[in-house]
Amino acid sequence: MHTHQHQQHPARPAPPGARPPRTLARDLAGLPEGSLARIAGWVHRRRALARLTFVVVRDRTGLAQVVVREPEALAALAGLPEETVVEVTGTVRLDPAAPGGAELVEPTFEALTEPATPPPVELWRPTFGAGLPTHLDHAAVTLRHPRHRAAWQLASASTAGFRSALGALDFTEIATPKLVGTATESGANVFTVDYFGRTAYLAQSPQLYKQMLVGVFERVFEVGPVFRAEPHDTVRHLAQYTSLDAELGFVRDHRDVLAVLREVLAGMVEAVRRDAADAVRLLEVDLPVVPEQLPVVHFSEALAIVGADPDEPDLSPAHERALGEWALAEHGSDFLAVEGYPMGKRPFYTHPQPDDPQWSNSFDLLFRGLELTTGGQRLHRPSDYAAALERTGTDPALLAGYLDAFAHGMPPHGGFAIGLERWVARLTRVENVREVTLFPRDLHRLTP
Amino acid sequence: MHTHQHQQHPARPAPPGARPPRTLARDLAGLPEGSLARIAGWVHRRRALARLTFVVVRDRTGLAQVVVREPEALAALAGLPEETVVEVTGTVRLDPAAPGGAELVEPTFEALTEPATPPPVELWRPTFGAGLPTHLDHAAVTLRHPRHRAAWQLASASTAGFRSALGALDFTEIATPKLVGTATESGANVFTVDYFGRTAYLAQSPQLYKQMLVGVFERVFEVGPVFRAEPHDTVRHLAQYTSLDAELGFVRDHRDVLAVLREVLAGMVEAVRRDAADAVRLLEVDLPVVPEQLPVVHFSEALAIVGADPDEPDLSPAHERALGEWALAEHGSDFLAVEGYPMGKRPFYTHPQPDDPQWSNSFDLLFRGLELTTGGQRLHRPSDYAAALERTGTDPALLAGYLDAFAHGMPPHGGFAIGLERWVARLTRVENVREVTLFPRDLHRLTP
Repeated sequence: MHTHQHQQHPARPAPPGARPPRTLARDLAGLPEGSLARIAGWVHRRRALARLTFVVVRDRTGLAQVVVREPEALAALAGLPEETVVEVTGTVRLDPAAPGGAELVEPTFEALTEPATPPPVELWRPTFGAGLPTHLDHAAVTLRHPRHRAAWQLASASTAGFRSALGALDFTEIATPKLVGTATESGANVFTVDYFGRTAYLAQSPQLYKQMLVGVFERVFEVGPVFRAEPHDTVRHLAQYTSLDAELGFVRDHRDVLAVLREVLAGMVEAVRRDAADAVRLLEVDLPVVPEQLPVVHFSEALAIVGADPDEPDLSPAHERALGEWALAEHGSDFLAVEGYPMGKRPFYTHPQPDDPQWSNSFDLLFRGLELTTGGQRLHRPSDYAAALERTGTDPALLAGYLDAFAHGMPPHGGFAIGLERWVARLTRVENVREVTLFPRDLHRLTP
Repeated sequence: MHTHQHQQHPARPAPPGARPPRTLARDLAGLPEGSLARIAGWVHRRRALARLTFVVVRDRTGLAQVVVREPEALAALAGLPEETVVEVTGTVRLDPAAPGGAELVEPTFEALTEPATPPPVELWRPTFGAGLPTHLDHAAVTLRHPRHRAAWQLASASTAGFRSALGALDFTEIATPKLVGTATESGANVFTVDYFGRTAYLAQSPQLYKQMLVGVFERVFEVGPVFRAEPHDTVRHLAQYTSLDAELGFVRDHRDVLAVLREVLAGMVEAVRRDAADAVRLLEVDLPVVPEQLPVVHFSEALAIVGADPDEPDLSPAHERALGEWALAEHGSDFLAVEGYPMGKRPFYTHPQPDDPQWSNSFDLLFRGLELTTGGQRLHRPSDYAAALERTGTDPALLAGYLDAFAHGMPPHGGFAIGLERWVARLTRVENVREVTLFPRDLHRLTP
């Protein structure tokens, strides 16, 4: 696939064997007019006109246009179908009309691999022209579509923002076991693993470990996979997703946790704005404004707002959507925290509301009408754990290593977890979290 | 456990109900002499002398000393055993002789939880006074020992340095599936999962996914758990560890990969130096100098250096130690890259050495005589994959989603993976990786 080198520019013959260094697409317009440049990437599109062919080359920074008029180079293009990886050496022509303000002319092509098989979907079309199953079946290729790439760039920048916001608040990053001996947080929806002949479980969250580590570092966070054996096929559940977890000690109550969550969300939005600007533009993401104070309503108040029965034990997705609209209308906020969920619906480690223990010091944060985050204050006194385990019928022996932390002194603490895929789905306003997950796993899908 | 508030300082009575904000241990010496301050943390140590008792309080930033002379406060201390979580309000006394340069006097104590059960090991002793099994059995508490905390702070800072070095080089962070449909990288040492009635496997590495994603983002990294069903009980293997993975496209060969690894190591060392300075000091870590160019020897040369049979297919741990000593003596380097490992010992995706295909374009990086990293150039042509799978007897159908990436155009690429726990073990010169892992998992251990 090596096309022969020919004279690049009469005034500046390339010395034999010398090649200019690689220039990234985003930097092409910064080179001097007439200079020799080399780009490298995937043949994104070939567009043949009567007397010339445009070749668009895609690299990690964007697209670069190559103008081909020479018969030899035009002939070489026949062997370089879309997605073939190439190096193109040519002369820089600055042109405000070209995409990015510059193009390469008088090119020579060198293929870095064999001619590519045509992808199942034309990746150069601005809209991805196939359904979700085609995308997911061929993810290794279809993720290259600029819109799919961009969605993940939002995720990647969000994660970095999560970490830097918490790092600035003195949080320590942790890594907790994903293989656990007991499925105590919830007996249902847990994957079992053959662990050297014993049964182990995949961790549904780092909850118990992040609490224990509050005893060590006071403030901890983890970004990692969590596993749910979700038996239902819904647009918002995955068998594996990325959980952005934080937990901190020495809080007065869940409102201190919410204040940290507010800082984290602001950091995530800011990181997306700064580090994924191209993706924001391409996907026309309407970045939320994070209010200085997240608006908060009590669970009982939330039921009243949506006109639900005051004895409802939980909020339905329809309730959440209605509350999202209410928050936007009433507070001009894309976010709404609902605090005080009934204790009966919350896990055993949940701290009750001190003045009325039927309610809890926990919250859900709704983002544009979808639950994004669950959090709250946890119990911290060993006697409260003893009572909670008795109430829920849990054998304390199964939690011995965890209960150790409380017996040996734990501060009042709380935390939250953000589902990364849900966050990006809401940012991009897609229904199905699979659209913004690199290689989703669910009831039906274990490949690629 | 609430001890009664009494007058703090005759000249400045605390207004009823008002409390000073919390001061962290590290900030205490920055307060004015005589001011009222509140600290919060764990009772690290009580030391009773004839006429006074020193109470050392531990928080996330260090230790603060409280001097107790008042009978009421002394009486309260009896109910505040070590590890009880307390708030202490008192008067700041600047004293160069006090740890950190300041102490609190005339204190009042408020317990934030019930009196703590004494830990299995006295955490205030400078050296951890028990063996590894005691530490691991009671990790929720024994990780609080300053030396254990410090070891993880090295890990946490290293991880941040890994990410920031790669972020500066335009790498995109990814999150890949940990549940996979085929155990193709190596049939052995893989955990099986009951996946909705089917068999799935826990990913032994993100290798195949990070390669596919080079096709999308060119340069990717992931920090995440990997799983090995190691049937042997060794000091350097765990069933779950944290892998720092990177992969990049458009390389000439594995030497370009090694150049990125060099930048990453320098970034990790720098982050540890900057963000974990207290831990470095406490553990007397001798941080390595990362040479501008990592010294490299060929595998065949390495065998000659250690006097091994030139037909040996691999390096033993003893060989690695000898090479570590050689690198220090010969190059003044804690690091040595060994390139060219025999193809027969490398995975199917390994790129051969072009001028002599019995050897590979892969490397191990030794750090102080221990294998820290494996990396190299991978195959990128679909025909090379077809040949490699035929040679190794692998059914291409099992890898369909992965092979898609190559059929549709992949650049020359390569990457590496660093085992976080091994890195920290070498930094701290401990033999057993379990000593620097938060909650290790192995053949025998699934709790806490």
